[in-house]
Amino acid sequence: MSIKVIVAGFKGKMGSTAVNMVKGDQELELVALLDPFADEKEVDGVPVFTAKEALIGFEADVWVDFTMPKVAYENTRFALENGFAPVVGTTGFTEDQIAELIALSKEKGLGGLIAPNFAIGAILLMEFAAKASKYFPDLEIIELHHDKKKDAPSGTAVKTAELIREARSYKKQGAEDEEESIAGARGAEFDGFRIHSVRLPGLVAHQEVIFGAQGEGLTLRHDSYDRISFMSGVNLGIKEVVKRDQLVYGLEQLL
Amino acid sequence: MSIKVIVAGFKGKMGSTAVNMVKGDQELELVALLDPFADEKEVDGVPVFTAKEALIGFEADVWVDFTMPKVAYENTRFALENGFAPVVGTTGFTEDQIAELIALSKEKGLGGLIAPNFAIGAILLMEFAAKASKYFPDLEIIELHHDKKKDAPSGTAVKTAELIREARSYKKQGAEDEEESIAGARGAEFDGFRIHSVRLPGLVAHQEVIFGAQGEGLTLRHDSYDRISFMSGVNLGIKEVVKRDQLVYGLEQLL
Amino acid sequence: MSIKVIVAGFKGKMGSTAVNMVKGDQELELVALLDPFADEKEVDGVPVFTAKEALIGFEADVWVDFTMPKVAYENTRFALENGFAPVVGTTGFTEDQIAELIALSKEKGLGGLIAPNFAIGAILLMEFAAKASKYFPDLEIIELHHDKKKDAPSGTAVKTAELIREARSYKKQGAEDEEESIAGARGAEFDGFRIHSVRLPGLVAHQEVIFGAQGEGLTLRHDSYDRISFMSGVNLGIKEVVKRDQLVYGLEQLL
Amino acid sequence: MSIKVIVAGFKGKMGSTAVNMVKGDQELELVALLDPFADEKEVDGVPVFTAKEALIGFEADVWVDFTMPKVAYENTRFALENGFAPVVGTTGFTEDQIAELIALSKEKGLGGLIAPNFAIGAILLMEFAAKASKYFPDLEIIELHHDKKKDAPSGTAVKTAELIREARSYKKQGAEDEEESIAGARGAEFDGFRIHSVRLPGLVAHQEVIFGAQGEGLTLRHDSYDRISFMSGVNLGIKEVVKRDQLVYGLEQLL
Repeated sequence: MSIKVIVAGFKGKMGSTAVNMVKGDQELELVALLDPFADEKEVDGVPVFTAKEALIGFEADVWVDFTMPKVAYENTRFALENGFAPVVGTTGFTEDQIAELIALSKEKGLGGLIAPNFAIGAILLMEFAAKASKYFPDLEIIELHHDKKKDAPSGTAVKTAELIREARSYKKQGAEDEEESIAGARGAEFDGFRIHSVRLPGLVAHQEVIFGAQGEGLTLRHDSYDRISFMSGVNLGIKEVVKRDQLVYGLEQLL
Repeated sequence: MSIKVIVAGFKGKMGSTAVNMVKGDQELELVALLDPFADEKEVDGVPVFTAKEALIGFEADVWVDFTMPKVAYENTRFALENGFAPVVGTTGFTEDQIAELIALSKEKGLGGLIAPNFAIGAILLMEFAAKASKYFPDLEIIELHHDKKKDAPSGTAVKTAELIREARSYKKQGAEDEEESIAGARGAEFDGFRIHSVRLPGLVAHQEVIFGAQGEGLTLRHDSYDRISFMSGVNLGIKEVVKRDQLVYGLEQLL
Repeated sequence: MSIKVIVAGFKGKMGSTAVNMVKGDQELELVALLDPFADEKEVDGVPVFTAKEALIGFEADVWVDFTMPKVAYENTRFALENGFAPVVGTTGFTEDQIAELIALSKEKGLGGLIAPNFAIGAILLMEFAAKASKYFPDLEIIELHHDKKKDAPSGTAVKTAELIREARSYKKQGAEDEEESIAGARGAEFDGFRIHSVRLPGLVAHQEVIFGAQGEGLTLRHDSYDRISFMSGVNLGIKEVVKRDQLVYGLEQLL
Repeated sequence: MSIKVIVAGFKGKMGSTAVNMVKGDQELELVALLDPFADEKEVDGVPVFTAKEALIGFEADVWVDFTMPKVAYENTRFALENGFAPVVGTTGFTEDQIAELIALSKEKGLGGLIAPNFAIGAILLMEFAAKASKYFPDLEIIELHHDKKKDAPSGTAVKTAELIREARSYKKQGAEDEEESIAGARGAEFDGFRIHSVRLPGLVAHQEVIFGAQGEGLTLRHDSYDRISFMSGVNLGIKEVVKRDQLVYGLEQLL
């Protein structure tokens, strides 16, 4: 039997991508669409609503939410109270709100997921890198992005570095007497290791973590080309929350 | 306080490499050397023995064994019976022997490790690849070795493929109507995915697992240049077995 | 002073991409558009024509042609006869036609370019690979494409292999006694070396040539993500043909 | 007929590696060895000399020289005057000395080679990178070495960057408003592009030049593991100098 899915925020970029993903998976059934900006009454036979209250009593399993920070908390509460397991990609929840929603999900015995990042590949890379750093404390991160990117290192690289810092024992890498003949050659220092930021036209978002040890090397690389890559994370979330009885924060909790 | 280590089989390649590793780590102390082929009475102040019986009652914590299959089982038994936690890199144990040695270790309350492969990097690669294949069922393996290698695919690639087969749902990859204009272009088929074997002078032993999904890619690569790389696994084994109370089979059990 | 450019076939995919490229380069000036399927009279102030004859006597330097095989030959003749240096991406010219157009270009003292491939990166990769193979006869090609691709190896890989065959002295690579435990592991054999075809979702069109020798390795890789990459070749063609006095076949002639 | 080779400085590391290379190539014949530090009278039937004067009138084609800066100039002069085409890997020649030796070689009608770098792969990489930078002005260099290396960027990276600067039109890369949240992330700036230096145990000497453009990328990588890699350059030098009638400086002159 297929999982019945509501998509809230279906007029936005992520929402409409999620609609296509749900339609393309035979294990899922799209049963309702919600967006205050919608004009249409239905899309390919699926009913469209502009206010969540119209969905009280509706028969569905999962509430996918790609709306806006200011409504996401209320939407998630509403979903749990009405028996829909929420899968939420909207950001901006406070820690208190998350704690409260987890408590509510337990009370209702419903699974749920709030995830700031749905890219399974990026999350696996971080997890693998953190684990490898326990055994290979010598590492460097190279992140590569398009040349319009303003900040360096990238947010993902900093997040990866923080997870490595938690797992790895501190080590100041490199030769003790090393010298840069041109400033910056050795990259940005973070917890004794280095991060290098490459910016070139044609690139999208890529990250490599290189580990070195006597006689061997280990390299982990993630390439991200398109937001469609987030959909495998959303798909996984939908299929996992229906098996669970409480909401979790972070896609890594489901991997 | 340092961990006192005996090295059995210290005249062999792996044994002598292990001796250097132990000497180079301040947390470890080399207390005895064993080898039936030894002529010397001591090496740098460390006593040398040619028969294991001479070590009954000797004070040591760990028994590192890089001997030969025909004596390794007896040696491991001897180590456990005399209070030394064994770390054994010799291969050729039967399943019955392993079960019996595990039982004996529990009885004695001693940790221990028998490992066919001490390359932490290679083991991590396999573990990561198997996990990633759950979420990214589309993958190919490229293994690269020196051009004197006779067999293709490599044993490590086949082992990796087997672990992926266990973790991944079967999928026949590639276009349904794909055709090779030159036979072999698409590589070796294994469980619906492909393995490619590259052989070139200058290479040693390398393996890459490439995962692809809509809009993203994940690549895991291990490079092995020298047997010295096995020593980080032996080192880890020594430090872990002294904290444990039963023998395990496979370095992955300690990661 | 800017180069005045006519784009023929501007309603097609390549033609419209070329229009944007010309508009975005301050050294170029778009002066006319031609397409029999055009309805509009002008686009952003640039006059639109539906028949080439209307351009007789028009003032322009270069005729960019992304039309169809059946008209491209006539168009190129027309351009040369009317003083426009042709840059032609349409395929399907016979050898006789090319020879005739080269002769005509000499007579008129006009430069020109007919190119089956405008991807500078792919052409450089082939040139570099052929040159390197003179000194490093041990090599393998790995080409990687999306998983809807039907043929393996790719046309680009075969073209690259042919250019290597011309430059390299024949050598049968690999161990003499090598054996495949799974058929196809060693890839497709071409002139004694191997080609491997990887097919995965998320990939577009990529090619790697790996050279190995005692103690070293050389790797050349080209990644192609989008047809926009052809535009740097068209741009180069436009700027080169105005400096020359005869037509050439193949972008490599201008590198 | 084989090429008769004298090796001067055969007791040193490079010299003895060269001896093995000459012996292993059927097109070459080792006819004499020279080293002031030699005690032996012959090695495997090849006569050994301790002073170059003993080789006046000796029958040989090529003089391979891996001696020391203070004698290399005199040795090269001596070789040319006695009819041996020199292949010299010793460094420290002044520009005046090189000019003088070239003049002498022309007078004698003898080929010759003085090369500060015999790594064909590294030289090809530099040449390819410089050429590609004409068409792809957006690039970054990543060089990777063992973690005992003191200087960053490496000498090879700086040499490569200088050759690129000569070939490429100046361009300041990256976003205009780019900011480093950790200093050094964007690497060392050289002529508007960036160089990143990675230092890890297990690495030897590696260099990657990455080019990016709209919709495509080109990556060139050289890996150097062992000094044996220089021997293909020496081998090439020996076979080329016998066909030429004047000395050249730099192996790139023969590629």
